[in-house]
Amino acid sequence: MPEDSMDKPSIVTCTAPVNIAVIKYWGKRDEDLILPINSSLSVTLHQDQLKTTTTVAISRSFQEDRLWLNGKEEDITHQRLQSCLREIRRLTRKRRTDGDARSTDSVGLSHKVHICSVNNFPTAAGLASSAAGFACLVYTLAQAFGVEGELSGIARQGSGSACRSMYGGFVQWIMGSKDDGKDSVAQQVEPESHWPELRILVLVASSERKPIGSTSGMQTSVQTSLLLQHRAEAIVPRRMVDMIEAVRRKDFPAFAELTMKDSNQFHATCLDTHPPIFYLNSVSQQIIHLVHRYNKYCGETRVAYSFDAGPNAVIFILQQFVPEFVQLVQHFFPPDRNGEDFIKGLPVKCAALPMELKQNIGLEPVPKGINYIISTKAGPGPRVVDDPSQHLLSAEGLPKKTV
Amino acid sequence: MPEDSMDKPSIVTCTAPVNIAVIKYWGKRDEDLILPINSSLSVTLHQDQLKTTTTVAISRSFQEDRLWLNGKEEDITHQRLQSCLREIRRLTRKRRTDGDARSTDSVGLSHKVHICSVNNFPTAAGLASSAAGFACLVYTLAQAFGVEGELSGIARQGSGSACRSMYGGFVQWIMGSKDDGKDSVAQQVEPESHWPELRILVLVASSERKPIGSTSGMQTSVQTSLLLQHRAEAIVPRRMVDMIEAVRRKDFPAFAELTMKDSNQFHATCLDTHPPIFYLNSVSQQIIHLVHRYNKYCGETRVAYSFDAGPNAVIFILQQFVPEFVQLVQHFFPPDRNGEDFIKGLPVKCAALPMELKQNIGLEPVPKGINYIISTKAGPGPRVVDDPSQHLLSAEGLPKKTV
Repeated sequence: MPEDSMDKPSIVTCTAPVNIAVIKYWGKRDEDLILPINSSLSVTLHQDQLKTTTTVAISRSFQEDRLWLNGKEEDITHQRLQSCLREIRRLTRKRRTDGDARSTDSVGLSHKVHICSVNNFPTAAGLASSAAGFACLVYTLAQAFGVEGELSGIARQGSGSACRSMYGGFVQWIMGSKDDGKDSVAQQVEPESHWPELRILVLVASSERKPIGSTSGMQTSVQTSLLLQHRAEAIVPRRMVDMIEAVRRKDFPAFAELTMKDSNQFHATCLDTHPPIFYLNSVSQQIIHLVHRYNKYCGETRVAYSFDAGPNAVIFILQQFVPEFVQLVQHFFPPDRNGEDFIKGLPVKCAALPMELKQNIGLEPVPKGINYIISTKAGPGPRVVDDPSQHLLSAEGLPKKTV
Repeated sequence: MPEDSMDKPSIVTCTAPVNIAVIKYWGKRDEDLILPINSSLSVTLHQDQLKTTTTVAISRSFQEDRLWLNGKEEDITHQRLQSCLREIRRLTRKRRTDGDARSTDSVGLSHKVHICSVNNFPTAAGLASSAAGFACLVYTLAQAFGVEGELSGIARQGSGSACRSMYGGFVQWIMGSKDDGKDSVAQQVEPESHWPELRILVLVASSERKPIGSTSGMQTSVQTSLLLQHRAEAIVPRRMVDMIEAVRRKDFPAFAELTMKDSNQFHATCLDTHPPIFYLNSVSQQIIHLVHRYNKYCGETRVAYSFDAGPNAVIFILQQFVPEFVQLVQHFFPPDRNGEDFIKGLPVKCAALPMELKQNIGLEPVPKGINYIISTKAGPGPRVVDDPSQHLLSAEGLPKKTV
């Protein structure tokens, strides 16, 4: 139907990154506000490799709020989505009442929104997409409604770890102490430019079973794991200080050791949960052995691993050692296809693998244990996409195509 | 060479049981004396299924102390073996000095010993044999030297958990507080007759890799795991009280839940060790899932698992539920051979498996994941074997045959 220009939707498109925690978040003290039992710290991955893109359209002619995820219309009444929408609208109202009507002139608060979001990585890869997704949603809504300022507290209410995807580089989520969660926000520790030599490899693992979701998993952990409680109260505070220090000083061995210890401790608390939760499978165990044996062989800590609530391994490594380590991974996890497709993202040079190294590792190769590697690095926070041709919604506010 | 009767060795044969900890021992505060960082509690398994047999011969004509294990002569200078020998000789001397020469008349302290020991279970089964082995050694030496009284403190110096194999039924190892370890001894909580309905199934799992040994494993854990420290100090004391109470009241659900939680917590501290230690493999994970899903299906806790520093699962279950659960295990771990050989030890009746149950468990069967099941129950402590034909050493003090 024809609409006059007054009714044309206002359209904004933004992108947001995935992040990988090196001090893990596991357990909430408040389920509704999503307040964590400990602070956490993550590295924001570069959007050239992994990102969510979201378009928000606002129009007085829309009948209702609508949502499309990866090409499929989804239920927008999802509680956490509603939290984000409500908080952004509340902020918009507040700005207006405060007299700052600058950017809300054209956007009526009663206007409905259409939201369309896609990931540039397959959901099947098992990469946690909710952090990038909610960060992108909140950032894009804020742009659409003309809201500025601290938004990580709103993203947090969509998905806890989403608050860390609101910034680039090295980001801490300060747990805060207030009951209303106002002080539970993310903060950049160092920008993405701080440590250019640091490379990140996502080893996308094949998984037989769908593991238990992190929301219900961490609930059970909080209720049943005595070790988790101790970790949150007595161990993480010190680790946050040490990790920030390691990042600031670009001390790779310190960063790497702490990253591995914290990943393992998180999975230890999952095992201490009743009934126990397993996210590490035999391929994960093999990767862990490989990394420790490689470091031992090198006589220094060159590689670190971190595992989230899924089977993928995230590898941290300095640029200069990437070629050899990737060769090593290919040797011990012989891929299905012929090499080239095995590595996606930032190009990786070829390297020879000393016979002595292969023998010294002493592991039995696991064919097809790893599907592919995404080679990336630390990257920036959410961005506005200026090119209107990139909008996921048409001028009428409907998805341009099924993605 | 011919010997007169004065030179005939004095020969004694005894047997001792394996034990399975339900509150785990992991970590020493003193490596030499083998003093633990926490108390532990175990069930002594019946010797009809699993035992060590040891013969000790003492003679003035022996040139040196000698040792044969499972048919092969071994180095007797092994430090912990020497600790046990030294302690038994010290005790013998003490008794004699104290004027109680009753049983040491015929056994000169300067006499050398020949020791021969065998297990009635294959070493390849991966069952911890050191507890039964050292318990049997100390018990048999004590018999040979005519020493009586508290011997678990000596067995402890051979292998920590051996002290618990000095008693039958339900046994606690009290960690003690003295520096010299005098108060770090085992004590029977309830005899083997206390809970006749309790059955124990050892699921002997196949393993690809030889896991890291418990001695070096627990050393690394003590040095690196912050969670282990907390467990030992703040969690186990309470669990010991609860476990003793559950055993006394024969409260199966309480016993079972605590057993599973403690097994998982022990493995959690292994994962929190740096580098991490894995004893649970994919078959162990499958068994854990099976038990929890079966309990859930039944609406009550009917089965518990416990895993030590190896791949085998130990199952605790009340007699009446054994047939159904064994069927379930056979269904989800289809054995290589045809049923009969799959179950060793106490006979298990056949049972039908409701289709609904199989479907409800929802796991993918793992063929040959479990080699066989040893069906057993709680049993008595070490025993003297009266029949001289059972001696493993000949009248001359040499092994009768290669076992």
